[in-house]
Amino acid sequence: MAFQFEILKNDVGSKARLGRMITHHGVVATPAFFPVGTQGTVKSLTPEELVEVGVEGILGNTYHLYLKPGHETIARLGGLHRFIHWERPILTDSGGYQIFSLAKLRKITEEGVTFQSHIDGSEHLLTPEKVVEIQRALGSDIAMVLDECVPYPSSHEYVKTSSKLTTRWAARCLNAKRDSDPALFGIVQGGVYRDLREESAEDLTQLDFDGFAIGGLSVGEPKSIMQDVLEWTTPVLPGSKPRYLMGVGTPEDILHAVMHGVDLFDCVLPTRNARNGTLFTSTGKVSIKQAQYADDPRPIDETCGCYACRYYSRAYLRHLYLANEILSSRLNTIHNIYYYMNWTKRIRVAIEEGNLVQFYQAQQAKINESEREGASCSETTIA
Amino acid sequence: MAFQFEILKNDVGSKARLGRMITHHGVVATPAFFPVGTQGTVKSLTPEELVEVGVEGILGNTYHLYLKPGHETIARLGGLHRFIHWERPILTDSGGYQIFSLAKLRKITEEGVTFQSHIDGSEHLLTPEKVVEIQRALGSDIAMVLDECVPYPSSHEYVKTSSKLTTRWAARCLNAKRDSDPALFGIVQGGVYRDLREESAEDLTQLDFDGFAIGGLSVGEPKSIMQDVLEWTTPVLPGSKPRYLMGVGTPEDILHAVMHGVDLFDCVLPTRNARNGTLFTSTGKVSIKQAQYADDPRPIDETCGCYACRYYSRAYLRHLYLANEILSSRLNTIHNIYYYMNWTKRIRVAIEEGNLVQFYQAQQAKINESEREGASCSETTIA
Repeated sequence: MAFQFEILKNDVGSKARLGRMITHHGVVATPAFFPVGTQGTVKSLTPEELVEVGVEGILGNTYHLYLKPGHETIARLGGLHRFIHWERPILTDSGGYQIFSLAKLRKITEEGVTFQSHIDGSEHLLTPEKVVEIQRALGSDIAMVLDECVPYPSSHEYVKTSSKLTTRWAARCLNAKRDSDPALFGIVQGGVYRDLREESAEDLTQLDFDGFAIGGLSVGEPKSIMQDVLEWTTPVLPGSKPRYLMGVGTPEDILHAVMHGVDLFDCVLPTRNARNGTLFTSTGKVSIKQAQYADDPRPIDETCGCYACRYYSRAYLRHLYLANEILSSRLNTIHNIYYYMNWTKRIRVAIEEGNLVQFYQAQQAKINESEREGASCSETTIA
Repeated sequence: MAFQFEILKNDVGSKARLGRMITHHGVVATPAFFPVGTQGTVKSLTPEELVEVGVEGILGNTYHLYLKPGHETIARLGGLHRFIHWERPILTDSGGYQIFSLAKLRKITEEGVTFQSHIDGSEHLLTPEKVVEIQRALGSDIAMVLDECVPYPSSHEYVKTSSKLTTRWAARCLNAKRDSDPALFGIVQGGVYRDLREESAEDLTQLDFDGFAIGGLSVGEPKSIMQDVLEWTTPVLPGSKPRYLMGVGTPEDILHAVMHGVDLFDCVLPTRNARNGTLFTSTGKVSIKQAQYADDPRPIDETCGCYACRYYSRAYLRHLYLANEILSSRLNTIHNIYYYMNWTKRIRVAIEEGNLVQFYQAQQAKINESEREGASCSETTIA
């Protein structure tokens, strides 16, 4: 089945949309959050556990899978879905972000980007055509174009040149795409500059992509810049196609971006935080290693219905974390992904019921209350 | 319900027995193997996964749980079963083995043993009465007496003195035991000396223990010594009570010991090997990191029905192992414990059907064949 995106409802009070993406491996209700499965596994969980907490799609990192075990090996073994035993949609990035954050000795030319593997120093050339080929071999449902992810801060001149190159690469990716290939999304770049973001979005939307991603965020810029970029960019993007904010973010970030019209998210935050013992709850973040939980018989979150909260106490989770047990990562990850799935579900329900703005205001009031109570800002989430 | 042991059938061709142990938390079919859950978790697995592969009981390490999170904390939280969400039987050791293998600056007196924690150097005194109290607080189903686990090699004189002390400690443990306490097993020591093993067994069997363990093995002695010790010891033990060979062992070790009349085993081998990428299969051990598996679409063992073998290829398991992914430990552990559960089940069926000796001979023929084919001895298992 060809990729389709349907908008079921536009929110009246914001730019949010309720929709669904139809892929070869099933339907995704949007706004949606995809957990990250960098190396062909969402760290610590099985596919069955992801399904149990309601995950409808995951992200795989092309850079990692290309280097290890290699896209050709995965293709020979029947594609990424079969290799990792995951039957629902997979979105793969193009590897651009990792080339610029992990690899060594990058060299960018018109042709593509040459880099050295962070694993063994071997040299590789990725071109726009090559990343389409790799993602075809993986058998993704949604593929991304090769882009240069510029660091923050970068000069207007540098970002302008880079964005233009990203757009030319995007056009080459689209040319390389075959009918049976994954859906292909373009990536808006342009750094923190309004004119460049608008230009990038305008240029890309001339091309017939299946959706558009907003890239180059979550690279160390202040929070307010993300809001600005969304405000500048989403109005330029066509209403009929899905919008994907790459690498974002906190529950608050997701809610804000949905209100700007974003449909899709991915982020390592719930899984990485879980392994570091930081848990999202309806009353704020919990750092499970704290001594206050040593004898605490309560679940992480008394309002949560996840496997970890149904059967285990904070005391046990603290013990597992301090004892460096694998089960600690597992239970914490189940809880945090469940939290994210529940959060996006509540957002979808609020759009459906026409009260997203009230939902947003209630969350803001909750944050303000926590801050008045002296909770540290970084320890506050909204729920 | 008070602890009971029933023998359902004595093997004609060997000293093997088919039986069942009835505990407060359910029935265990013997011969049985208990995986090790040192710190309140069988590393990497949930209780549900243990049940799925057929585990009927697990072992918890008193030394570790006493130090972290502490037996009093566990008691306040409702006992070990509730703390770790495991509803089937738990056997706890006395901590003796760990005091002699992990702790620092041990000092043994008639009263008990003083040692420094390997975690923070804090000083502790464990007496026979104290280890009964700790295991009561944990709420084990089967508790062990405090013993001195003598190193290999030790002189006849040292072992004689030590075994006598272990027996006096055992009597004190029994005196400290209350009616509602866990079942209590004595531990036969005596090193590699026939007279001392027999003396230890004779002295202990004068006391009304619920079962008898054979301790002080798997401490670096040659394999043949284990056979000798079993041959000397089990005939002295009463036929009506369960016999537990502590810390043993390979599938072959278990089969040999069953034929000497042993009913119960525990060992870290299946779980530790799993995390090191060594898998038990019906055709010998598999080291999953080997390059020969890079493109191998087959399951670990084509005759195995475990979750890992149902859904994942050797190629994927190799990838997960090399990528240092948590899922690697999980899938490998499920497979290895499933292998052990299946192995003990086959032993029970062979006793039931009266063909244990034939089963043993078939396994020996298999091993001999592998050896003729030039397989390294240490890489051979029987199945």
